Amino acid sequence: MRVGELSKRSGVAVPTIKYYLREGLLPAGVLTSPNQAHYDDEHLRRLRLVRALVDVGGLSIATVREVLAAIDTRDESLHNKLGAVQEAISQPSTGELDPLAVADVQAFFARHGQTECIDVTESNVTLMLAAALSSARSIGHDRIHELLDPYLEGLKIIAKADLEYVIQHTSPDDVIEAMVVGTLIGDTVLKAVRRLAHAEVSRGVLSGSPDSDLPN
Amino acid sequence: MRVGELSKRSGVAVPTIKYYLREGLLPAGVLTSPNQAHYDDEHLRRLRLVRALVDVGGLSIATVREVLAAIDTRDESLHNKLGAVQEAISQPSTGELDPLAVADVQAFFARHGQTECIDVTESNVTLMLAAALSSARSIGHDRIHELLDPYLEGLKIIAKADLEYVIQHTSPDDVIEAMVVGTLIGDTVLKAVRRLAHAEVSRGVLSGSPDSDLPN
Repeated sequence: MRVGELSKRSGVAVPTIKYYLREGLLPAGVLTSPNQAHYDDEHLRRLRLVRALVDVGGLSIATVREVLAAIDTRDESLHNKLGAVQEAISQPSTGELDPLAVADVQAFFARHGQTECIDVTESNVTLMLAAALSSARSIGHDRIHELLDPYLEGLKIIAKADLEYVIQHTSPDDVIEAMVVGTLIGDTVLKAVRRLAHAEVSRGVLSGSPDSDLPN
Repeated sequence: MRVGELSKRSGVAVPTIKYYLREGLLPAGVLTSPNQAHYDDEHLRRLRLVRALVDVGGLSIATVREVLAAIDTRDESLHNKLGAVQEAISQPSTGELDPLAVADVQAFFARHGQTECIDVTESNVTLMLAAALSSARSIGHDRIHELLDPYLEGLKIIAKADLEYVIQHTSPDDVIEAMVVGTLIGDTVLKAVRRLAHAEVSRGVLSGSPDSDLPN
């Protein structure tokens, strides 16, 4: 297809596609004449992935380039590639870490079979967790860590559904794009459904007579 | 206690306490002399709640005033008060709604015993959900709604733990403060633990041999 059709099928404007080509986020098309290039479905897939990383993930062009390099590494398993992308789309937190919150995270990992003591600063995800627990402790909530085990139990059900959603896609680019969209848009879906579940559980406990399992 | 001790015990600076008093977010203390007032534990509780709403919830002073009015309504059940606060701390989304995404939300409610068709714009929470599904559809992900049922299943476990955390507090102000902190800081904890659960499930499915139930 020509660039015009690539734009139409992806929903990305032609000048944006040309910008991605210049920045090396999209491989060049095959020249069919001195000023006309041909693009295929691989370009369309990569373009969708770039758009998800930029628009949904809010990543900078430099970070997108790093993520694509990780994806294009031949020797990595898909699991490791997904891990690299997950790190890139998980914002590291900036607040100060409370040593007690760091210990809470380490104890959580220890309870779940992690034998060596983890360094929470080694991953954006553990850093996010330690920062949230630190922030709770700073305002006197020092028992939020007790929620970690039930959270993990519920999230295993959710993560299984997430992975099933992701692996129904076939090409690695599509799998990774689905993971980015599913993780980031999924965060908001989860927030909303959590509030609906709160209302339901609260109605059962605090005002009796649950006749539906969602709030009126 | 005097204002200095109220400040020390709450961690809120004296000028901020005086500002809250002027804005009517904190009831006046009992005057013990023309320029000295006495505050009690109720003031301390209310101050903690105001701080959670402002600092963790990011609410404006005007919204905090509305939330406090809802809490102080005598005839409401605690369940209804929690619902009012939940609405206030759930940011309404601004994106355009896709009618298909709205139908997805309505179908979800219908599957869970809601017999009348709901108006998604009536609550910030359903609006948040419809907006997230609309945003996914706008980039070609029209099957995210299939995740809603497994999400609800996992979130019921999580919401039960959340409510147990909240109701271990005794005064209504403390219950509501714990709900604000638990909901908002809990959102981030949940995001982080979801990513850990992703890594675990992905390792089991995509690279075999899970010897721990959390990622290395």
